[in-house]
Amino acid sequence: MLLTNATLATLTGPERYGLIENGAVAIEGERIVWVGKADAIPADHKAQEARDLEGRLVTPALIDCHTHIVFGGHRAREFEMRLEGASYEAIARAGGGIVSTVGATRAASEATLLASALERADALIAEGATTIEVKSGYGLDRETELRMLRVARAIGRERKVRIKTTFLGAHAIPAEYAGRSDAYIDEVVIPTLHAAHAEGLVDAVDGFCEGIAFPPNQIAQVFDAAKGLVLPVKLHAEQLSWLGGAALATRYGALSADHVEYATADDAKAMTASGTVAVLLPGAFYTLRETQMPPVAAFREAGVLMALATDCNPGSSPVTSLLLTMNMGCTLFRLTPEEALRGVTLNAARALGLDDCGVIAPGKRADLAIWDVTDPAELCYRIGFNPIHARIFGGTE
Amino acid sequence: MLLTNATLATLTGPERYGLIENGAVAIEGERIVWVGKADAIPADHKAQEARDLEGRLVTPALIDCHTHIVFGGHRAREFEMRLEGASYEAIARAGGGIVSTVGATRAASEATLLASALERADALIAEGATTIEVKSGYGLDRETELRMLRVARAIGRERKVRIKTTFLGAHAIPAEYAGRSDAYIDEVVIPTLHAAHAEGLVDAVDGFCEGIAFPPNQIAQVFDAAKGLVLPVKLHAEQLSWLGGAALATRYGALSADHVEYATADDAKAMTASGTVAVLLPGAFYTLRETQMPPVAAFREAGVLMALATDCNPGSSPVTSLLLTMNMGCTLFRLTPEEALRGVTLNAARALGLDDCGVIAPGKRADLAIWDVTDPAELCYRIGFNPIHARIFGGTE
Repeated sequence: MLLTNATLATLTGPERYGLIENGAVAIEGERIVWVGKADAIPADHKAQEARDLEGRLVTPALIDCHTHIVFGGHRAREFEMRLEGASYEAIARAGGGIVSTVGATRAASEATLLASALERADALIAEGATTIEVKSGYGLDRETELRMLRVARAIGRERKVRIKTTFLGAHAIPAEYAGRSDAYIDEVVIPTLHAAHAEGLVDAVDGFCEGIAFPPNQIAQVFDAAKGLVLPVKLHAEQLSWLGGAALATRYGALSADHVEYATADDAKAMTASGTVAVLLPGAFYTLRETQMPPVAAFREAGVLMALATDCNPGSSPVTSLLLTMNMGCTLFRLTPEEALRGVTLNAARALGLDDCGVIAPGKRADLAIWDVTDPAELCYRIGFNPIHARIFGGTE
Repeated sequence: MLLTNATLATLTGPERYGLIENGAVAIEGERIVWVGKADAIPADHKAQEARDLEGRLVTPALIDCHTHIVFGGHRAREFEMRLEGASYEAIARAGGGIVSTVGATRAASEATLLASALERADALIAEGATTIEVKSGYGLDRETELRMLRVARAIGRERKVRIKTTFLGAHAIPAEYAGRSDAYIDEVVIPTLHAAHAEGLVDAVDGFCEGIAFPPNQIAQVFDAAKGLVLPVKLHAEQLSWLGGAALATRYGALSADHVEYATADDAKAMTASGTVAVLLPGAFYTLRETQMPPVAAFREAGVLMALATDCNPGSSPVTSLLLTMNMGCTLFRLTPEEALRGVTLNAARALGLDDCGVIAPGKRADLAIWDVTDPAELCYRIGFNPIHARIFGGTE
C-alpha cells in the first residue's frame, strides 16, 4: 500500500510534529517501509497501489496506555446520588464506591464482561486507537482477577487491536481482607500474579500506592514478585498525596508512574534517569474536580516523557475518548497540542514498553490514523468531535 | 408506530424523570398520540406496528438551544499558540481572536459555510438532537449576516432537523466600526435585522452584553427594534462580569439569558417572573477555565428554568456534543442528571419559545431519542461515549 498526498505528523525529526507536507508512506505487510516527500518516492514503491489522501493529516494510530475497561456494572446511580447531595457514607451504605464494581465484576460471567468491555474498546477504536492497555483490579480474588485478564486478551482476538495486559491485584483491599492488607498481598496478590503469569496473561504489573490503598513497602513486595518473573512494572502514584510511590517506581525501573499530580522536581529527575514515563490522566482530574495539577513544567525541565490516557474506569474516569483526553490535557494541564499528540502515540508506546509503534518511520508497524483535518492542533482543539477518516492496523484497514 | 417495552423518561408527572417503566408510546404522523404503561395500551393503538425496545431508555430528542455552528475557518492554531505561551497581543497580531473568524466567514461562500456547518450539525444529530438553534454574528456586515442566516435555514432543508435562527448582529464590533459602536448599531445591526426579518430569516434576536461587546443601552436599542418586529429576544449576559444584562432581558420578556455566571439572586427572581430561561454553557466555562460558577442554587430557589447548550463556536467552545455538555453541567456546575436532561430537552425548548416538544406526552411532536442504556443518569455519567440506538424526528427515523 502507498499513501500519497498526505500531511504526515511523523513525530520524528526536527520539524514541529515531525511534519512532512505532501508526504507519502509505503507499507509492506504489517510494516512501514518508506516515509518521505511524495515527489521523492523511490521507483520500487511507486509500483504499489497508491491511495491519494487529498492532503489529509496522517498520525501514528492512537494508543491508550492506561485503562480499566473490563468491569461489571456501572456507577451512574452513585454519580447521581452525589449530585443530589448524598454523603460519602450514604453512598457507601447504598453499596457504592469501588466495592460495588468489585461485587458486580465478581458476579459477571466472562461473556458479560467481554460484551461491555468491547463496547468501550469499540469507542476507543472508532477514534483511531490500535493499542489499548487493560488492567485487572476489580476482582481482588484469584478467580476474578484471572477472568478479567482473560477477557482483556479476548478483546484482542475479537477486534483488530493490540491489547497489553496489566495485573493490578494491588488496586484496593477487598472487604474480606479489611485491616489485613499484608495478608491480602501474601495470600491473594502474589499467588494470583504467579498464576496469571503462568497462564500467559500478564504483560506488566501495576499497583495503587495511596493512603486509601497500599503503602510503598507493600507495593515493593509486589514489584519484587514481578521482578522475579521478569515482568515490567508501573504504578498509580502521587495522585491524591505524595507518598514516595514515583521514586519507588523509578528504583524498579518502572515503565511509567501514572497520575503523578503530587510528584516533585526530584521525582521528575529520578523518572528521567530511570526512563519512567509520566502518564497523565486528565479525565480523573476532571471528574474528581481536583485542583493539584501535575508538575508539567518540572517534567519538561527534567526531560520526562509525558503520556496521556483515558484511565477509563467506572468510578473516577468513565471516559472512552482519547481525543477528548487530548483536549483535557491541553485545557486542564496546559500541554501543547504536540505534547498531547506525542502523549497518545510515541510516549504512550514507551509507557507500555513498546518500541515498534507510535511514530511514522520505516521499520515500525503500519498503525496509522488518517484524519479529515490538515492541522494536527485540530485534534486537540475540537471537543466532542471525531474527524477520523480511516484507521490502519498492521497495514490493513 | 407503537414503541413498546420502553423505559420512558417523559419529563412529565410526579416521578423522577417522569419515569414510566415498561412503557409504550403511540405515534401517528408527526405526533405522539398516547403514552403509558405497555399493559394499558388502548385497543386502537394496539393495532399499530409495534417495535419492542427491550427495556431501552427513551427520552425526548435533544435540543441544542445555543449554538454558533455557522462560521468560516477554525481557531486551532490560535489554541496552540496560547498553549505555547503566546500573549494575547501576539495572537491578535497574528490575526487571531474573533477577528479571524469574521474574516474567514466574510470570505466564505454559502456552500463552504454550509458544508462545515453540516459537519457540526451532523455531530449533534448523531447524538439524538432534532432541534438546533443557530446564531448569526460572525459577519457583522449586512451581506454576511444574511448569508449566515440563509445557511442556517439550509441546514434544516439538508437534514432531518428543525433549525431555529437567531440574529446576533450585536455580537462584536467589527474593525471598520472600532470606537463607533453606536454607528455600528444604527447603520448595520438594525437595518440588517429588518432586512433579515423581511426575508423570513429571523426567529429571535440576541446580543452580547459585556464590557468587550455592547453595554445595556445599546442592547436595548436592538431589543426595541426586535419588539417593533414582534420578534422574541434573548441575551448573552453576565458571562465575564455583572452588567445588568439579565435584568434588561427580563424587562423585554426575553426567552433566555445565556451564560449568566455573574447573575445575582435578584436577577434569578426577575427571570422567574418574566419566564426567562437560564441557558448554562459549561463548554465555554471549561474552555476559558473560568472559576465563577453560575448561581445554580439561586436559580433553583427562585424556580428559574435551567437549560444547557453546547455554545458551539470556534473560539470559546468548539464543542459539538450535547452528551458531553450534560456531563459538564453535572461535573462542573453540579446540576443533577435530571436537571441536565431537562436542560437539553424541555427547558431548551422553552429557551427557544417552543411548546410542542421537549417532553413525551400526547399532542407533542414525536421527536424522540432511544438509547442503549436503561438509567437516564447514564447519559450524564459517561464521558465521550454515545449510546444512541435510534433517533425519531417528527415520527420518522
